[in-house]
Amino acid sequence: MKKHLEQEQSTNQGRVARRRAQVRANLLAAAREVFLARGYQDATVSEITQIADVAMGTFYLHFRDKEDLFAALVHEAFDALGERIEAVLADQPHQPVIPIITSIIFRAAYEHRDMVALIYSGAGTYITDPETFDAQEWLIDLVLPTLQEQAKREPLPFTDLSLLAHLIVGLLMQSAMWWIEHDEPGPEEMARHVLSLLGHGLPAALLTSAQSSSSESSM
Amino acid sequence: MKKHLEQEQSTNQGRVARRRAQVRANLLAAAREVFLARGYQDATVSEITQIADVAMGTFYLHFRDKEDLFAALVHEAFDALGERIEAVLADQPHQPVIPIITSIIFRAAYEHRDMVALIYSGAGTYITDPETFDAQEWLIDLVLPTLQEQAKREPLPFTDLSLLAHLIVGLLMQSAMWWIEHDEPGPEEMARHVLSLLGHGLPAALLTSAQSSSSESSM
Repeated sequence: MKKHLEQEQSTNQGRVARRRAQVRANLLAAAREVFLARGYQDATVSEITQIADVAMGTFYLHFRDKEDLFAALVHEAFDALGERIEAVLADQPHQPVIPIITSIIFRAAYEHRDMVALIYSGAGTYITDPETFDAQEWLIDLVLPTLQEQAKREPLPFTDLSLLAHLIVGLLMQSAMWWIEHDEPGPEEMARHVLSLLGHGLPAALLTSAQSSSSESSM
Repeated sequence: MKKHLEQEQSTNQGRVARRRAQVRANLLAAAREVFLARGYQDATVSEITQIADVAMGTFYLHFRDKEDLFAALVHEAFDALGERIEAVLADQPHQPVIPIITSIIFRAAYEHRDMVALIYSGAGTYITDPETFDAQEWLIDLVLPTLQEQAKREPLPFTDLSLLAHLIVGLLMQSAMWWIEHDEPGPEEMARHVLSLLGHGLPAALLTSAQSSSSESSM
């Protein structure tokens, strides 16, 4: 009899937790819809709760305010990206990390380019707010070990590997922003450009003054 | 007599314009001080006018609000950077553009790293607001012609030169953000890292799966 009661309590607890998770998921889905339709500034908690069919009081059991809800939405997006990257890396343990994450990030950013635009423009300070999830730091933590391992095998022409990881990730983050204002090229072409730049660099003539004598003689 | 009157009027107009420019300069200097000390959110127009010794009513002859004043401050900083870059490029017409702007941007960003931090964190949406001065676009307009000229001389392994210019400038902008959270390395070392990455890329082992067979055999 006691055991039966415990079972019933645990079933109830499970039901409450599931219901709670469902309300949260509904709010996040509605938030995504409203933020994308109205932009961050003009989105209201009131419209989001209406679309999610959730009472205003219930909203505040889940989120502090609009900013908190937006942060949760961005967290969720980066969590999904992180899970995708970790799954692929686990599946291909001997493949180089940088091309893999480049390809996944570009496909995800292209697929969700409305969210990319929203994150960068909407709640402006979000990305640089140190208290919120820092996607950049997380990516750097993926890239840095692969640089450190490589440096053990052969000396790299970079003394600060943490800076190098930051440069590589910065290049990826900046590239993903490309789609905020452009629809082309697609993610494969974008990855090809970035990996070509990372793999071979620019032609020497663009970086050294070797050409100055020839351009002077042509004057 | 008429001529004398015209002269006097023109002297008066000159005096008014000078006085107006001086008030504006005082407000910008005070704004810089207050924004850096308090951060964007906590800075108030009231404190800025007090420090500038300017009446509140006069403030509104020059700026719409705090945001407008902040935008003017950022404009001013980028204008100064632009003038510095244009002067050096005019002085060294046969030198490659990318190393020159890399070096100038890093020196300026390091010198004014408190302003860099303020721009990125303070008025978050500033940088991505298309209505305000877009420093990134301006830098791309400097880099793109040099890529186009080079592509005429020899084919580049990049089909989209506008994207390539965006990647290079993105790398510079992201690198400059490094100093928001780090004091080291200095601008010369930073420029060396970026130009080395742009010049030679990363070791092939980091980007191709050539190493997979060797790492498999070592297991």
